This record gives sequence, structure tokens and C-alpha cells, in this order.
Amino acid sequence: MLSSKNRNQPIGVFDSGLGGLTVVKALMRRLPQEDIIYFGDTARVPYGTKSRESIIRFSKENVALLLKRQVKMIVVACNSSSSHALAALRETFDVPIIGVIEPGCRAAVKATKNKKVGIIATPATINSYAYPQEIARLDSSIKVLGQACPLFVPLIEEGWSAKMVTLTIAQEYLKKMRQSQIDTLILGCTHYPLLKTTLRKVLGVKVKLVDSAEEVVHDVRAVLTNKAAGYAGSRKGTVQFLVSDEPAHFQKLARRFLGFDIQDVERCHV
Amino acid sequence: MLSSKNRNQPIGVFDSGLGGLTVVKALMRRLPQEDIIYFGDTARVPYGTKSRESIIRFSKENVALLLKRQVKMIVVACNSSSSHALAALRETFDVPIIGVIEPGCRAAVKATKNKKVGIIATPATINSYAYPQEIARLDSSIKVLGQACPLFVPLIEEGWSAKMVTLTIAQEYLKKMRQSQIDTLILGCTHYPLLKTTLRKVLGVKVKLVDSAEEVVHDVRAVLTNKAAGYAGSRKGTVQFLVSDEPAHFQKLARRFLGFDIQDVERCHV
Repeated sequence: MLSSKNRNQPIGVFDSGLGGLTVVKALMRRLPQEDIIYFGDTARVPYGTKSRESIIRFSKENVALLLKRQVKMIVVACNSSSSHALAALRETFDVPIIGVIEPGCRAAVKATKNKKVGIIATPATINSYAYPQEIARLDSSIKVLGQACPLFVPLIEEGWSAKMVTLTIAQEYLKKMRQSQIDTLILGCTHYPLLKTTLRKVLGVKVKLVDSAEEVVHDVRAVLTNKAAGYAGSRKGTVQFLVSDEPAHFQKLARRFLGFDIQDVERCHV
Repeated sequence: MLSSKNRNQPIGVFDSGLGGLTVVKALMRRLPQEDIIYFGDTARVPYGTKSRESIIRFSKENVALLLKRQVKMIVVACNSSSSHALAALRETFDVPIIGVIEPGCRAAVKATKNKKVGIIATPATINSYAYPQEIARLDSSIKVLGQACPLFVPLIEEGWSAKMVTLTIAQEYLKKMRQSQIDTLILGCTHYPLLKTTLRKVLGVKVKLVDSAEEVVHDVRAVLTNKAAGYAGSRKGTVQFLVSDEPAHFQKLARRFLGFDIQDVERCHV
């Protein structure tokens, strides 16, 4: 059980690969005193095209790996994993586990005026119905439109976020959402904040973009406050990076998500 | 050691996912009497963006899985795996192991007139230099141009092979090859045969497209003939499909590669 005894232990964050670094960036900015251990399962990335059963199995292995490193709580910084595995993880492990779905939905419900909310995500996340379910729980009068966008992650990782072809693909994916005149769009994949400029071009500047990476920090802070388990002191925390595939490639791409270079990345098998 | 004693055992074929089915299709057409067991490592797909070390580890596990099923030889129907792991596999296992690189290069060397050959493949295959090395071994006067095309696989799996946006992306990837006036292009990924129409639009109909899936059958036949290990009889062989992720998704997409529906797909962990 998390308590003030654990306050100086790190926060564990995992993702299927790189995308969860947008969550790390938000945590570093808003809870700078906390230590963070990030695990990217780069040997098995992506999760978003895999089945529920595999996503649950991988997620449990990732949490077990982080718990061996003495983390005080877990942030599932991966939408595919949060959609399918969150309940199973909470049943299995005795630490607070925060996903990205609930915070994202809460923010979207607060933001929408016309009660039309769009969600873009991986096929796994869309097929789970985790987002429409959670929104219905909060406000059943909201109309929810989901769209799987399997090409967005490869386009971002190719470094093509600002290319014309990415705009064309975004126009195709978001056609129905434009027609339905959503006023709020949930970025249901931690890679997508890197596409904000393109998405604004397609949807117009009036549509609110909800970035779960930002929202999840509220929930982490709430857990730490409730349990009096925030870091005791005000020094700048450290961040440690673990990956299951080769560190070099991760290190190179990490800059795009974090905005700064990282040095030591450790490889470990799950 | 393979011999006529093993002739009625199946041929084992593996790939990181679906692409290797183009090899299965070619084997079924040209060696119809042989039984085939196919393994697609769909839980860890793709390999083409992963490191050499991970690709070798995964490939060894895949071969071990197929050998448990009593296969008489192995076809590595994955370019990323053939590029990085073939030597390691041949050192480790005592059965004939055929990759896709050597057959593809042999065909390209035979086909080129102006001695300018292009290769399109995943980042892992391009970074391995397996293709230029093998071509240099066969004819060092040939100029080789490689291009990693990481978006082609997601585009094909999205079912967008014939879309305008795929043509635009192909034009971008193949710009240098057009300028260099290659007369032969190796499709260095088992997914790419599904892009032949698009590639012909970009490069013109005079450029020869070398499809390793077709070429690899020659090598399989040669091994079976040399060792007198071809199936003894002329009935139609069976094909068995194994995958590491959920069978349903594989089953749905398999049609695009095979041209017909498959029924039973078995799930097994590696």
C-alpha cells in the first residue's frame, strides 16, 4: 500500500515505446521534484495493432519490471494498454495505477459545449470502446465519434509530422468528425500531441484538442497528495530510461517527444 | 541432417507477421505436394524497426518453435530476419535454412542490364547492408541504391495500396532511384509485392521488379532435390498457420496476401 513511507521512491511510467515520453515531459514540468523510471517496451512495440490478450500479458510484465525497481506507483502512459489492461493490472498489483483514459475523458467532458466529442487512437484503443464507455459514465448525453488512425504513429516516427502527405491522411481520417462538427477531440495516443499543428489545420482552431499526457498529471498529483506520498523536499528529481530493444534508436527519437537529449538508456528484457 | 528419411515432413516458414504469406503462396503454387507450417510472430511484429540483437533472438525462438513441429527445413520468409539472423540461425540449428536475400540478389544480378539496382526494404534490412554485400559478392561492378520505406507496411496493412496518398509517398521514397535510372528494383520486404502497381506507376513499366517470394522457391526446390527430400507422392499438401497474437486479425488480413480465405489458425507463444 502506498503511504508516506514510500514518498522518496520513484514514479514508474511505461508505454509500448516512445509515446509515453509526452507523459514524462508533463510529469517533469509539473512535479519536478519526483524521481521517474520510464520503461518503453520497444522490442514489442506497437501495442495498438495487437490483441487484448497480448496487451494485458505485456502490460503485466511491464508493471512487474517496474515494481522490481521499487516504484511507488504506476502510470500507464499508453492508451492501448490503459484501454485493455488497466482493470487487470489493478486486480493484480497492490500499488496505485493511473491510466490515461479517465483523465482524458474528464477533460473532454469539461471542454465540450456542443456535446460532440471525437477520439482518435490506435485500432486497439478504438476497438476497446474504453473512451465512449467512460464518457457515457460521466455524461451520457455526449455523442462520441471514434476513429482508428494506424498510420499516424509511423508517420510521426518517420519524422513526417509536418509533411503535406500527413495532412492529406489526416483529412481522410477526420472526414466524418468534420462533418459531425465535433468541438472537442481527444488525442487518444501519446504520440499524437506531435500532430497538433496538422490536426488544427484540418479541424480549425476552434476545436479543442485534449492531450491526455497533460491531464494524467492531475491524477498522479491527487494520488500523491491523498496518500501523503509526494517527494519530501524540493530538489530536482532524476529520470531513468529503460527499454527492451536497442537503446540507441530510442535515444535518437526521444528528443522529438521530450524536447531535450537524454544520455543513459538501459536495456532490459521483459 | 536432412535426407530422404525426412521427405514427408513439412517445410517450416516464418515471418514477423503476414508478409511471409507471399512466400507460402509461391511455395503452394510451385511445390503443391509439400506440407507447410507457417509461423507469423504477430505479437512482436514488426521486426523491420527493431535492432539486430532483438531480431536474432526472435528468429532463434521462431526456428525452435517450428522444429518442435518436426519441419524438415526452414524458410526465413522475412527480409529483416534474413538480413540479420541467417548466419546465426545456420550456426545454431542443424537443418537447411533458406533466406530471401540470396535468391533476390541472384535474380536482380541476372535481370539488370545497366548495372544499377535499387532495393526498397525496412530500416533494419537497409541498415544491415545484406543486399549490397551479396550483390557485390556476385558482381562488384553493379551499383546498388538502398531506400528504407517504413511507411509501406502500415499503408498495405491499412488496405491503402491503391490510394493516391500511397503513390505520393512512393514518389518521395523512390525519387533518388528514378534520378539514378535503376533498371531493376528488389522488393526487399515480403509485403511489397502488394505495391507492384503503385511502384510501376512511379518507376515506369521498364524497370524490372524482383519479388523474392518467387525467387526463394528455386532455392527450396534445389535443397529438396539435392537431399532427395521432396515429398514422395503427388497429392496436394496441407498448410498449417500458427501465430503468436490473436488468430482473428491474421485470418482477416491473410486473404490480401494469399488470395483465398484460411480457416484454422492456431495461437502459440514464443
